[in-house]
Amino acid sequence: MNNKLWGGRFEGGVVPAMAAFSDSIAFDRRLWRVDIQGSQAYAAALGGAGLLTAEEVSELQSGLDRVAAEWESDTFELRPSDEDIHTANERRLGELVGSVAGKLHTGRSRNDQVATDLRLWLRDEIDALHGDLRQLIGVMADRAEELLGVAMPGFTHLQTAQPIRFSHWLLSHAWPLVRDLERLGQVRARVNVLPLGSGALAGNPFAIDREKLAAALGFEAVSANSVDAVSTRDFAAEFLFAASLSMVHLSQLAEDIVIHSSQPFGFLQLADAYSTGSSLMPQKKNPDSFELIRGKSGRVAGSLTGLLITLKGLPRAYNRDLQEDKEPLFDTVATWHGALEIAAGAIATMECRSDRTAAVMDDFMLATDVAEHLVRRGVPFRQAHHVAGAAVRLAETRGLALAELEAADWASLHPTLAGGIAGLLDFEASLESRDVEGGTSERAQRTQLERLRQSLERL
Amino acid sequence: MNNKLWGGRFEGGVVPAMAAFSDSIAFDRRLWRVDIQGSQAYAAALGGAGLLTAEEVSELQSGLDRVAAEWESDTFELRPSDEDIHTANERRLGELVGSVAGKLHTGRSRNDQVATDLRLWLRDEIDALHGDLRQLIGVMADRAEELLGVAMPGFTHLQTAQPIRFSHWLLSHAWPLVRDLERLGQVRARVNVLPLGSGALAGNPFAIDREKLAAALGFEAVSANSVDAVSTRDFAAEFLFAASLSMVHLSQLAEDIVIHSSQPFGFLQLADAYSTGSSLMPQKKNPDSFELIRGKSGRVAGSLTGLLITLKGLPRAYNRDLQEDKEPLFDTVATWHGALEIAAGAIATMECRSDRTAAVMDDFMLATDVAEHLVRRGVPFRQAHHVAGAAVRLAETRGLALAELEAADWASLHPTLAGGIAGLLDFEASLESRDVEGGTSERAQRTQLERLRQSLERL
Amino acid sequence: MNNKLWGGRFEGGVVPAMAAFSDSIAFDRRLWRVDIQGSQAYAAALGGAGLLTAEEVSELQSGLDRVAAEWESDTFELRPSDEDIHTANERRLGELVGSVAGKLHTGRSRNDQVATDLRLWLRDEIDALHGDLRQLIGVMADRAEELLGVAMPGFTHLQTAQPIRFSHWLLSHAWPLVRDLERLGQVRARVNVLPLGSGALAGNPFAIDREKLAAALGFEAVSANSVDAVSTRDFAAEFLFAASLSMVHLSQLAEDIVIHSSQPFGFLQLADAYSTGSSLMPQKKNPDSFELIRGKSGRVAGSLTGLLITLKGLPRAYNRDLQEDKEPLFDTVATWHGALEIAAGAIATMECRSDRTAAVMDDFMLATDVAEHLVRRGVPFRQAHHVAGAAVRLAETRGLALAELEAADWASLHPTLAGGIAGLLDFEASLESRDVEGGTSERAQRTQLERLRQSLERL
Amino acid sequence: MNNKLWGGRFEGGVVPAMAAFSDSIAFDRRLWRVDIQGSQAYAAALGGAGLLTAEEVSELQSGLDRVAAEWESDTFELRPSDEDIHTANERRLGELVGSVAGKLHTGRSRNDQVATDLRLWLRDEIDALHGDLRQLIGVMADRAEELLGVAMPGFTHLQTAQPIRFSHWLLSHAWPLVRDLERLGQVRARVNVLPLGSGALAGNPFAIDREKLAAALGFEAVSANSVDAVSTRDFAAEFLFAASLSMVHLSQLAEDIVIHSSQPFGFLQLADAYSTGSSLMPQKKNPDSFELIRGKSGRVAGSLTGLLITLKGLPRAYNRDLQEDKEPLFDTVATWHGALEIAAGAIATMECRSDRTAAVMDDFMLATDVAEHLVRRGVPFRQAHHVAGAAVRLAETRGLALAELEAADWASLHPTLAGGIAGLLDFEASLESRDVEGGTSERAQRTQLERLRQSLERL
Repeated sequence: MNNKLWGGRFEGGVVPAMAAFSDSIAFDRRLWRVDIQGSQAYAAALGGAGLLTAEEVSELQSGLDRVAAEWESDTFELRPSDEDIHTANERRLGELVGSVAGKLHTGRSRNDQVATDLRLWLRDEIDALHGDLRQLIGVMADRAEELLGVAMPGFTHLQTAQPIRFSHWLLSHAWPLVRDLERLGQVRARVNVLPLGSGALAGNPFAIDREKLAAALGFEAVSANSVDAVSTRDFAAEFLFAASLSMVHLSQLAEDIVIHSSQPFGFLQLADAYSTGSSLMPQKKNPDSFELIRGKSGRVAGSLTGLLITLKGLPRAYNRDLQEDKEPLFDTVATWHGALEIAAGAIATMECRSDRTAAVMDDFMLATDVAEHLVRRGVPFRQAHHVAGAAVRLAETRGLALAELEAADWASLHPTLAGGIAGLLDFEASLESRDVEGGTSERAQRTQLERLRQSLERL
Repeated sequence: MNNKLWGGRFEGGVVPAMAAFSDSIAFDRRLWRVDIQGSQAYAAALGGAGLLTAEEVSELQSGLDRVAAEWESDTFELRPSDEDIHTANERRLGELVGSVAGKLHTGRSRNDQVATDLRLWLRDEIDALHGDLRQLIGVMADRAEELLGVAMPGFTHLQTAQPIRFSHWLLSHAWPLVRDLERLGQVRARVNVLPLGSGALAGNPFAIDREKLAAALGFEAVSANSVDAVSTRDFAAEFLFAASLSMVHLSQLAEDIVIHSSQPFGFLQLADAYSTGSSLMPQKKNPDSFELIRGKSGRVAGSLTGLLITLKGLPRAYNRDLQEDKEPLFDTVATWHGALEIAAGAIATMECRSDRTAAVMDDFMLATDVAEHLVRRGVPFRQAHHVAGAAVRLAETRGLALAELEAADWASLHPTLAGGIAGLLDFEASLESRDVEGGTSERAQRTQLERLRQSLERL
Repeated sequence: MNNKLWGGRFEGGVVPAMAAFSDSIAFDRRLWRVDIQGSQAYAAALGGAGLLTAEEVSELQSGLDRVAAEWESDTFELRPSDEDIHTANERRLGELVGSVAGKLHTGRSRNDQVATDLRLWLRDEIDALHGDLRQLIGVMADRAEELLGVAMPGFTHLQTAQPIRFSHWLLSHAWPLVRDLERLGQVRARVNVLPLGSGALAGNPFAIDREKLAAALGFEAVSANSVDAVSTRDFAAEFLFAASLSMVHLSQLAEDIVIHSSQPFGFLQLADAYSTGSSLMPQKKNPDSFELIRGKSGRVAGSLTGLLITLKGLPRAYNRDLQEDKEPLFDTVATWHGALEIAAGAIATMECRSDRTAAVMDDFMLATDVAEHLVRRGVPFRQAHHVAGAAVRLAETRGLALAELEAADWASLHPTLAGGIAGLLDFEASLESRDVEGGTSERAQRTQLERLRQSLERL
Repeated sequence: MNNKLWGGRFEGGVVPAMAAFSDSIAFDRRLWRVDIQGSQAYAAALGGAGLLTAEEVSELQSGLDRVAAEWESDTFELRPSDEDIHTANERRLGELVGSVAGKLHTGRSRNDQVATDLRLWLRDEIDALHGDLRQLIGVMADRAEELLGVAMPGFTHLQTAQPIRFSHWLLSHAWPLVRDLERLGQVRARVNVLPLGSGALAGNPFAIDREKLAAALGFEAVSANSVDAVSTRDFAAEFLFAASLSMVHLSQLAEDIVIHSSQPFGFLQLADAYSTGSSLMPQKKNPDSFELIRGKSGRVAGSLTGLLITLKGLPRAYNRDLQEDKEPLFDTVATWHGALEIAAGAIATMECRSDRTAAVMDDFMLATDVAEHLVRRGVPFRQAHHVAGAAVRLAETRGLALAELEAADWASLHPTLAGGIAGLLDFEASLESRDVEGGTSERAQRTQLERLRQSLERL
């Protein structure tokens, strides 16, 4: 006998190639736990609606416990006809408890069942990823605090720009992750809505108590329209976007770390545990961990694009195209989790070389401070900028540092500078001068750290 | 003289092809208003920090008013050297108020200036789009209420499935837009953060009061890290995602409307005002409005993809790649707005043909009700499903409707049906039987409408 | 002992999480055969260059045969240290043949090795997909020939437009696949280029004969630049695009079939073997096969997007990011193959209902023929189009077909029509009138079929 | 009077918002020339088919010449009712030549007209881009030849790997462009197919000679199926992919140049003409040209994604969604052209600093040469690799270069090295040792240059 859940009106079976193309058990089996959780709650709801006796509810629930135990102990045996996890679990339940199993699907469709399972699964994964993000941000905060005293060149256009602190650079990569954390929490709320009780598309005819069902499964709300409930994969697309943007953030962190680890920079050195070598070149130590993170940003954003394409232009209500929601979610959860975990470990253990950051900092990076000095003496900034630019050109032409220009040179550039620029070309002074919120002074850094840690409390 | 803002150290100019490739004035001129708004607030902040006298602040602000007036009256004249809106406005300000204009950029960089402008502009556009979304949802609610009595076939897999109401179908397209509305509000909060005072990347050295500046410009918060403030385009990517998902929603609505307007369906007819004809075929009346909406979902999601690609792997801090943030935003705001406006007008004026929805509804769509009937008599659902499936096959084989089967046929299918199925095959009864939250009963529809309108109040 | 290929300078190992994040053996093991094939050819090349004795070459090659035999018989045992297929095979070879195994990697790097393996694998898969495409096109040609006599409504904007033939509709979906076939052949030529002999990035120092190596592995050309050879994944991106466009073609075919199978259309009915039912609704028979094909177009285009993102902005030469090339290729090959196979089977077995296509064809679809009739009598087309449009409006207002208008009506529309339109409103005549290349006449259809079959010969 | 081409059966007009949303004249006006070209050829074809007299053909063609002259001289005046370029040109033609203009559209639809126009336009742009690509490759070849003597560090994982030549690095970026050139030629052949004569979807009823029409317009082939001819936008998607991959290539070149221009590297310095400065920091000289190129790779790939989304799941035949084909093409052509032009100019004028490439090259980059030396003495490579790795670790631990290790150190590492490594640690010798095709020896470089220039001849 054909144990497909829908076999009634069909005379032949599907061709084997079709089964291979359409079955989802190979990947959706990971939903076994939430599928059973949902079925147990639904059995209780059927009991509450008077469709099952208390005994039947109990029989079903303990049968489902036995199915779960088989999965848990890896003794569940799949049959070729188990096209998906829902079929597999119900088939096995029937073998274990007999015909009462046939009552479980009363008023339920795979359409509302699968949407429920996926939301339950994703909600739990979001909670785990929330923890991963917090851990990484925490590591970054700790390293920033530890290395707050290290000056480094800030870059724009990958050209040395102005001095910043190592802590400032590292925290500039932490804040985007804080936004990811906030966004993820908002996505969670839209994931955590119960579709069960929507049937195939038209709702449930047996007056089950959906609010109670939601509460039993930890859902915060009940879907408002049964057609929407079985059709929408918004929650999946939103999650994939949150992951994509976060992976873009990590790719930018990775880019900085890869560049800063390159010999001509040499600012950073990853621990062996997060590096690999070359099968050909014996001297190599490569920052593979961050290259992989950077590379995997493509995969995650590709999954987002793929799901948007799948969803685009679909008519109401459930269409089989929607089966394509699962694999991108499964892959993205694993990838994002791995990237966060690896990044945390690698950042916790990387070495920061202040001799190398210092070596790269030439005093042209203080040209802006020269201009600002003039501004403080009343020179309009546009003019001050030109004067400082001329100083740079003069020094460059002569192959000198700014500090090596003579008082006469400065005088020739602007009368205000006639007295020379003693004490002006100082990296620490430059850092301390930017004492505004979000700036580079030590005070501002400590405020920033505090604000970051408060965000972690709040989010 | 070269009036580029950065001419000091450069001897030659850029080649014309480079200017054409890199200048942004052709598209960022639309930021003129927010650029002036930001500069006026910044002038006040410089005054507050003691860098400008009250008179200078006033001179700058009234000069900026004059620049604004020129834009407003379309008399602002661009010069070839105006590479972007910031340069153009500052150049013109200098012509109007003289050398004091050179003080405006004190401690400010185009990096924090452009980020500020773009956030101001986008925040205002978000508010307008919020209104567009509300209007469309409101129209849908009104039409749903008006057409609550019309039954129509619900489809899954584009096969007739179970009866639903026209209102239920239409509201199934409204709820995703409600989620869009909620999401847009959350994006707005992350857009509405002040970057000004971050300088090029390292912060502002003149102790300006950033909190006060934020308040003056209506920002809810101040950026916490100057490097992050000038580097991040999170807010743009988030907005593009919100628009992409909403356009996917509209593309699904469009798909339904295009199909439902096709002659074999004939459920809907768009007003002439939202249709076009054919240059060759005289009889054609085409639902171009919704085809365009559906087609334009690609453009918006393409812009999201494009920005993610641009952002991927960028090192800290500002890189010129970020100039690519503007055109996708400008295009997406216009496209999303147009789609929402057209959809609202077309839905408000479309005709719904209940004779055609009725014509498509055959009673095989009530096979589930037959199964549910058996369930209510104690038959396990799996068995009931097979019985109803067998009934369908029997009727199909004989070329009959279910209602045309005889009592003996029913009896042969299951003893419980021996008495026939009088009163069972009734569309209205089927609709009313799904009386759960989110279901098709009239009561559930009214509750749903109320819940929808409450959401509009809240969001 | 650490059997990583690069262990020499490393003191500690990588953390377990890093191994999980970075190892590729779980997916690249499918390259076992081409990896061995490449190594056997490379051993011969080392022999040819005098670096190995004939005996050593023979020892290596027969050792590799034994490794292959283990994979073939599924007895190859993976070790935790086997980070990728290359390491696994070389490790096992060493166990089987001893220290001579350590000579195989002479002058070779995993960088040129993996690029070679992937190209070999993809070339073979392209050949298989070429066959899949040909099979599907062949099936479409056969069904088109069989159903050449069936008229159906042609649609634009999903509105009935003009009559066409079923064959014409089906062949309109075959031609895009012919272009896919041509494109795939061109991609194959760019895939089939040998990178081996490029070392890690700088070339091979042992004067191996690359032309001979290419010939041994069936490559048509030898890469021209060693840095490019190990860096480029063009061939993968090109292949993913060819697959994406082809899946878009199949998604359009799927859309038509899903719509044409919907009850209000009813033009087509898929065989049970390519349909599935509903777990809730007993009467359902759903075209899941084509819904899956349509849905999976997203996944493939998502993989293309993902790889482009991964490749964007990568510096020279090999970066670990490139490991992300494999999974999208593996997944896409399987998906495209499955879609082509399922489409061929489903089209071969689907039923076409000429009674239903006829039922949908009203004579407004012949309004263009009325205009063309006037043109043949010398009326300028623009005027003729207006006259025919007026006729449609007149008939529509009265609730009539065009054929039901009276001679006086026609006379009132245009004097030329005073004699009535006898014989004009005939679907078959309309089809036959479009007797140009690519048109709907029977002659044109037969020419088209011939041209299609010639393309299959040629490509 | 409503001069829409399809006004006949419509009573009201479209709402203004709909016109704004749907009109394409703002962007498709750039097709004016090809639209006129196509119409002139079509007029001749109508003449050939006996539908127009020779005089009418001549009247239409000279009228179209006058329309063209207006566009050319920028005196063409658009009317609000000109929804697209086709309508505008036909409207104006009517004003100039009277009612004969109404005969031009005989048997033609905008569906086949717009497809023809777009193919004509794109074919010409492809020819221009072909020239741009050739120019850039030529510049790269010339600079490579000039700088063939400059050694530089080759990187993998952005870690110094092995010495290469500057020419080798630059040519590694040229070869991908050669593949782009080949691919573009293949796309051109699929673009250059005539759709005209396909009508709205069903073909042309007036026996026009399509082969002759194709020849007149320079098309190489005639479309084989009228439904496919008006539906397909393959050619656009293919072109967008070719551009996307080429922009990814340019983004990789840009990444290298940006990194190589960074102060810690300092290998390259762009000419002022391709750089810009900072509005705040006077010393800055930024490689904006290549940052823009890198950033714009996102926009182009976004356009590809967007079009694939638009095309996905569209039913046959023409749907208004297809209007979304034009803007991505227009934007991509301009972007790709600009990027190629800027890259050519910037590479032609950039300065290469051999002192800085030399400064970065430490002799750990020759560790592989040490291993290869051992291999030549019969040591299996795996063992040789470990020995060389141990040498690196030893030197690193002592803070020495490899060349600073003593003979005793080498002896302790491997007996074969007991005599020391005199002459082995030489960059030039290392370069010359890789004398295989695609390698770094001078001979191999010259062969490579020759092969590249031959490709330019061929493609």
